[in-house]
Amino acid sequence: MIETDLLIIGAGPCGLFTVFEAGLLKMRCHLIDSLPTPGGQLTEIYPKKPIYDIPGFPVVNAGELVDNLMKQIEVFKPAFTLGETAQTIDEAEGKFIVTTNKGTQHQAPVVLIAGGLGVFEPRKPPIEKLDQFEDKGVEYIIRDPELYRDKKVVISGGGDSALDWTIYLMENKIVKSLVLVHRRTSFRGHLDSVQKVMDMAQAGKIELITESEVSGINAGPQGQVASVVINHATHGNITKETDHFIPLFGLTPSLGPIADWGLELEKGAVKVNTFDYSTNRPGIYAVGDINTYPGKLKLILCGFHEGTLAVQSAFARIHPNKKNVLKYTTVNGVNGF
Amino acid sequence: MIETDLLIIGAGPCGLFTVFEAGLLKMRCHLIDSLPTPGGQLTEIYPKKPIYDIPGFPVVNAGELVDNLMKQIEVFKPAFTLGETAQTIDEAEGKFIVTTNKGTQHQAPVVLIAGGLGVFEPRKPPIEKLDQFEDKGVEYIIRDPELYRDKKVVISGGGDSALDWTIYLMENKIVKSLVLVHRRTSFRGHLDSVQKVMDMAQAGKIELITESEVSGINAGPQGQVASVVINHATHGNITKETDHFIPLFGLTPSLGPIADWGLELEKGAVKVNTFDYSTNRPGIYAVGDINTYPGKLKLILCGFHEGTLAVQSAFARIHPNKKNVLKYTTVNGVNGF
Repeated sequence: MIETDLLIIGAGPCGLFTVFEAGLLKMRCHLIDSLPTPGGQLTEIYPKKPIYDIPGFPVVNAGELVDNLMKQIEVFKPAFTLGETAQTIDEAEGKFIVTTNKGTQHQAPVVLIAGGLGVFEPRKPPIEKLDQFEDKGVEYIIRDPELYRDKKVVISGGGDSALDWTIYLMENKIVKSLVLVHRRTSFRGHLDSVQKVMDMAQAGKIELITESEVSGINAGPQGQVASVVINHATHGNITKETDHFIPLFGLTPSLGPIADWGLELEKGAVKVNTFDYSTNRPGIYAVGDINTYPGKLKLILCGFHEGTLAVQSAFARIHPNKKNVLKYTTVNGVNGF
Repeated sequence: MIETDLLIIGAGPCGLFTVFEAGLLKMRCHLIDSLPTPGGQLTEIYPKKPIYDIPGFPVVNAGELVDNLMKQIEVFKPAFTLGETAQTIDEAEGKFIVTTNKGTQHQAPVVLIAGGLGVFEPRKPPIEKLDQFEDKGVEYIIRDPELYRDKKVVISGGGDSALDWTIYLMENKIVKSLVLVHRRTSFRGHLDSVQKVMDMAQAGKIELITESEVSGINAGPQGQVASVVINHATHGNITKETDHFIPLFGLTPSLGPIADWGLELEKGAVKVNTFDYSTNRPGIYAVGDINTYPGKLKLILCGFHEGTLAVQSAFARIHPNKKNVLKYTTVNGVNGF
């Protein structure tokens, strides 16, 4: 059982900065995130994209902001359970016990949900027994391009994600061969990405199969992906040998398991009050994109404020008899653990 | 008459960042500040001090943060009335007219008070006709050290401000001569500053007169400071010729003129609601250190959030029939004026 003062669900920018404000009040934090690294959407969805609305940064790359936040909280030694999804919450003797999908248990007097847009569920194509091939050659998100080094890959999709990864995997000479399958003849992505992919197909660097859908997967001896069946609108089926099948049809955010935690919800977000960003369950707070209140804006800078106020309230909850006087870091600096 | 969309009283960090959020909504801003440069307390009180609790900055100097904010809002071309204090507010035809102590008039449909701790009033020693010498050799704040280039200077006070400026003016060889007058024999400042000043006195670089107070000022032909009378606790009076007399007894924040603007106050701050940080006067908002609400923390990062929400409400007030859809800078970038 992992024990901490503040258990933070979500290691995105708001969860990370909350560690800092909690640390100033001498509260230790442990963070759980279903993603394999800290940073939330910043790391997962747009690590290379510039952000312009973080106060004090005329511009900052999303990944750089995460690095800065990690450096800022380093002194408070946060601990992480990564790649696991917080699944259930129980209460015992005035403490919460949060268990992940892999069975890891965490105990804390206060839980702070900084879950961003929740869990990102990939849109899956309607292919029979698709689920059986997950972890066996079917991936909905490209987490580590090196997984595809010298492999045969079939990507399907017609948006920026499918185009960008096709370009990336080819230009960096990672894959052995690449087939891009798309239902239509036109693409929804940036014009220059579309042009690049067309040029690659023309030059024979990739195989582009349009007006087609992957309609089936054939298994190899260990149950892994061996080939896919590609159905053309008019020409019928062909079979392509491949090591990986990567359907890139976008991600849909959903609250995930915390929807069942007995929290008052509104439009897929957790209702909080603006005094301390507490939920209807005493001891559980929600900050950042995952919460809602009148006037709510889903901005990172708002989550910073919310987390800061929430930990003040958490402090009062954990130390009902201690007086907490705000100390300015400008005067006192930061003393870590 | 200066006209703008959003008239911001106070050009500290929160006032500055509000320009950015207003600009994203295509609202122009004009800022009034009694200080001669933007930055508020950051520039005025602690430009060289490190701040540790701005999200995304493991550490940032106060002055550097101001520079960053100025750069971030540059694209929205904010205008400034500096060195003037917002004095009165009138309403005419649904607009506010704010007049400064120097008579400059500003008109806007929305006023946002980001006045920080208010106006900083120097603590003045009880010296007869002291006020007459203001702007004639008596200064309570050292704004520009160059004013004292090759001049005779008398500083009085025993805190960090008196010590630090004594050291600064001597080490940088700015003044011709410097006399430091202090009521006691011991100082309230940092030990190493005290030691440095003692060493300077020992080496004859400055004249240190303790157990003494400046009790009078003598005027020269143009009414400017010509000499001060220094009263020693037991030895009686001596007279010192000087060009400047700088009493550094600290600054006391006060709300200043806005205390008379008909705003609901509580403990020297402006009461706001946390939906949009509006005051009891429709069209007037208050953000940053100057406002108060249940759970208020006087932190810069909270002011950033407050200003951001306030401008959403200001937008709805200025454009009652326009729908405002939040656009993310990550997707769209920033388009200036």
